[in-house]
Amino acid sequence: MTSFAADATVAELGESGILRLIERFCSNQVGDDAALMGGMAADQEMVITTDMLIENVHFSDATTSAYDVGWRAAAANLSDLAAMGAVPWGLLIALGLPKETPISWLENMYQGFGECLKTYGTELVGGDTVRSPIRTLAVTAFGQVRQGAAWQRNTAQMGDAIVITGAHGLSKAGLMLLLEPEVYPMVPLSDAERELCYRAHQRPQPRLDIVQTIRELTDHQSIRITAMDSSDGLADALIQLCQKSRVKASIDWNNVPIPSVLEKVAGIKARHWWLYGGEDFELVLCMPVDLADQLCQVVPECQVIGSITGTIPPDSDRLQDDLLDDVRDDFYVSGLSRRDGFQHFS
Amino acid sequence: MTSFAADATVAELGESGILRLIERFCSNQVGDDAALMGGMAADQEMVITTDMLIENVHFSDATTSAYDVGWRAAAANLSDLAAMGAVPWGLLIALGLPKETPISWLENMYQGFGECLKTYGTELVGGDTVRSPIRTLAVTAFGQVRQGAAWQRNTAQMGDAIVITGAHGLSKAGLMLLLEPEVYPMVPLSDAERELCYRAHQRPQPRLDIVQTIRELTDHQSIRITAMDSSDGLADALIQLCQKSRVKASIDWNNVPIPSVLEKVAGIKARHWWLYGGEDFELVLCMPVDLADQLCQVVPECQVIGSITGTIPPDSDRLQDDLLDDVRDDFYVSGLSRRDGFQHFS
Repeated sequence: MTSFAADATVAELGESGILRLIERFCSNQVGDDAALMGGMAADQEMVITTDMLIENVHFSDATTSAYDVGWRAAAANLSDLAAMGAVPWGLLIALGLPKETPISWLENMYQGFGECLKTYGTELVGGDTVRSPIRTLAVTAFGQVRQGAAWQRNTAQMGDAIVITGAHGLSKAGLMLLLEPEVYPMVPLSDAERELCYRAHQRPQPRLDIVQTIRELTDHQSIRITAMDSSDGLADALIQLCQKSRVKASIDWNNVPIPSVLEKVAGIKARHWWLYGGEDFELVLCMPVDLADQLCQVVPECQVIGSITGTIPPDSDRLQDDLLDDVRDDFYVSGLSRRDGFQHFS
Repeated sequence: MTSFAADATVAELGESGILRLIERFCSNQVGDDAALMGGMAADQEMVITTDMLIENVHFSDATTSAYDVGWRAAAANLSDLAAMGAVPWGLLIALGLPKETPISWLENMYQGFGECLKTYGTELVGGDTVRSPIRTLAVTAFGQVRQGAAWQRNTAQMGDAIVITGAHGLSKAGLMLLLEPEVYPMVPLSDAERELCYRAHQRPQPRLDIVQTIRELTDHQSIRITAMDSSDGLADALIQLCQKSRVKASIDWNNVPIPSVLEKVAGIKARHWWLYGGEDFELVLCMPVDLADQLCQVVPECQVIGSITGTIPPDSDRLQDDLLDDVRDDFYVSGLSRRDGFQHFS
């Protein structure tokens, strides 16, 4: 490869140079019009998801290195597959770049993306690279799940336990430590605590391990599990699961697991960040109580935070019609408002 | 649905309003973390492709209505599936929008996208919508092809006929008529001729019909067919097919089918636009001569334009190493230079 100065840009690399760089990270070298993936076993279904990430909306040089932009983009999409109970099959990246993007940014972004995929046993299989005034990533992830065994959002039932698979609020804490170091933390942190928050923000871990653990616990039988990830915040996930399943939930507010490090960073805002911080990429699951107990025993960071306590009458049209936005959120989860939540588009 | 003023923007619509609008065009209404697609027959493989389109790079309000932005985005991705010999299975759109985007733009874009999918018997199954300073679309299309029957770029052999499936240069002609009406056409056009050019540019037709026709002509046997689409220009397609297959081609330059309307619009530039115009979304195919003859008989707009005349010695490392960019293109196709070609990234 021709060598470039440390600050060389993708414009100097040119189209074919960009392609050669990307090919180092891509398992599909043939360069056809589309990636050929092979077939699926007869008992499998496909799930597929896409996410767009925009510079200065979803990431910025101030808080996110190129490596972490790649890692987070991969992790967010793998988390969507985990939320469906699926196993990853492959990913694509469509990339928009300004001419003045450093080659090193492009390379490090693919490095982070690739490391995340490798960690979770999957591959980049294709993509597209175009010129754009701002850095833009659109990642597509697709995976497989056994016929009838996909987890959805609309299957929760009265009596189900509500389980979260790990800490919430730490991604927000990491972001705020980076953005406003003169304001946060409220109480001094150890290096390890600070690193914990940074990592939660910069290297989120999609919970594909939970998919595997639950499959093993249930002996690969199709147990009814209702799931989504908490990328838009824990509160949003709880409300969505209730809305889609037409059920009410009760959270054990006196006993929710607010991480101690979160209290040190956020002070009185700790509970708020825990609920609304977003981007923790844990799973929020509704399942039979005994399975929930087994899961919490096997995976210590899992915790039951409440249960499904009632159903929304089928003759209530408030869910269907245009009043949806006016429905008070505690119609679903007592004491919870979505208004403060993280909103993708506003 | 709440009614909005004609010039209302997506900011007024809000996140949930945007989602409701999109749901009207999307077959997957459940709103899970990923779309659940079902399984594939045991004898099928999957192909998957993604494309990013940026405002003022790939489209602009000056030449492309919202409806046509949607149509073209769908068509370009379906054309990639056709180039693989595949049948569409579904598509996703990730969309970045400025707050001030008119609701009508969003709606018309989805309308155009949806009409194209409907025309070709497939569906929108999911997506993502985020805030962005510029309008950005990332479309992912996936399809199915029988095991071992995918068309690729690297299988052309000595003696193959080279077939194009339709007119080239007309998309460029349509674009130039829109952009520089005081310069083009060189010779007055009838309304029908003008419309032909506009439509070539604004409503390209992915050649999924050719996939079907060839499958029928070959009785669904796996015949070796080498293919790509001409989205980046006919010259680029010819060179890529030769590079990837390590063969040389000869084009019957004295007998190439330059459309008469192209000569009226472009004058002495007609042949140049035919070769380098791009975005015609036809297929360029290499196949045994007798199959080529059958295809041209059944589909009159298909034409043999040349043949594969030789191979590149396997000990030539010029294809592999960093001299690639310096290789004179007539190393592959006599008299053809890629230098003037359409380049995605420069």
